[in-house]
Amino acid sequence: MSFYAAPIARLIEEFEKLPGIGHKTAQRLAFYVLDMPQEKVDRLANAITEAKQKTKFCSVCGNLTDTDVCPLCSSEKRDSSVICVVEDPRDVVAMEKIREFKGLYHVLHGAISPMQGIGPEDIKIKELLDRIKEGNVKEVIIATNPNIEGEATAMYISKLIKPLGVKTTRIAHGIPVGGDLEYADEVTLAKALEGRREI
Amino acid sequence: MSFYAAPIARLIEEFEKLPGIGHKTAQRLAFYVLDMPQEKVDRLANAITEAKQKTKFCSVCGNLTDTDVCPLCSSEKRDSSVICVVEDPRDVVAMEKIREFKGLYHVLHGAISPMQGIGPEDIKIKELLDRIKEGNVKEVIIATNPNIEGEATAMYISKLIKPLGVKTTRIAHGIPVGGDLEYADEVTLAKALEGRREI
Repeated sequence: MSFYAAPIARLIEEFEKLPGIGHKTAQRLAFYVLDMPQEKVDRLANAITEAKQKTKFCSVCGNLTDTDVCPLCSSEKRDSSVICVVEDPRDVVAMEKIREFKGLYHVLHGAISPMQGIGPEDIKIKELLDRIKEGNVKEVIIATNPNIEGEATAMYISKLIKPLGVKTTRIAHGIPVGGDLEYADEVTLAKALEGRREI
Repeated sequence: MSFYAAPIARLIEEFEKLPGIGHKTAQRLAFYVLDMPQEKVDRLANAITEAKQKTKFCSVCGNLTDTDVCPLCSSEKRDSSVICVVEDPRDVVAMEKIREFKGLYHVLHGAISPMQGIGPEDIKIKELLDRIKEGNVKEVIIATNPNIEGEATAMYISKLIKPLGVKTTRIAHGIPVGGDLEYADEVTLAKALEGRREI
């Protein structure tokens, strides 16, 4: 006999499948849910189902959205001549939070990674090129992650875009604001030096 | 405009309400759910709804169960002459895990706490006395938590039970196995000394 009634055991098991949630936390969450009023439990369960059902990828930029096209792509206020290329919908949120960028996005849904068998055709590069070929785009900012896969993807994309006569830029690498030179790794510090600007 | 599509924002908000889950973790969980296949998302949502709907409190011992009476109370193998009194269904699980105790349980669903306005009539003490008065019980082991509320509850219950001629015991307090005398607090050490046994 299990220590828990079957529905509780099942709930603990389901919670355990989520990232960063071990057995003890799953147990704690399960008992917390059992203590919640029925109405709030339903709201949680519905939120899970609906988030999955109602969100899809924007047919233009590939961002997560509940409307097609997404509010960013359909907004009159955004500058459609600049496209910021990111790996993941989460990166769009990170970029939006700085409240500086007023262009559009393009979500690749991954990065080129020969190690993991992800080639250029597995991510949304073709869709990006199609958007650029429509003619309106003046600058493509490549904001893939500053790791091997992200850099490789940035290089690959820039080589495809440059012949189209579109300005291609890469976000700067350097010491994070509030960071400490002493603790910066050599590669970052070298990039910071390389990218130095006149003040 | 929010940074997230409405259903995602709602899911993040719901996750944030769970204990020990802050905004960043909620965000991570939400995006993880969006990446899960539909079938697994449904399974998670169902597990939540069903755990709440299908579990109730056992009419005898007050433990969480999906059958009434619970498997522990209805088991032929358990010794119904011993009742272990605990505060919470989670404590039943903790006790069961030692695989030593073969009696039945009684879950109080709380402890007496004048500070929080919880009196003896707010927890399942009456139900415990009713069970004892049925006559079969020979020993009541009080395993409430070793804090002020738990101790007060233990004292209160023992005073009610003793006149009924039933043996009443309290689980031992002392240094945890694997613990260190040096780091034990004074109260625990005093309890350990007080509860010393001949070897």
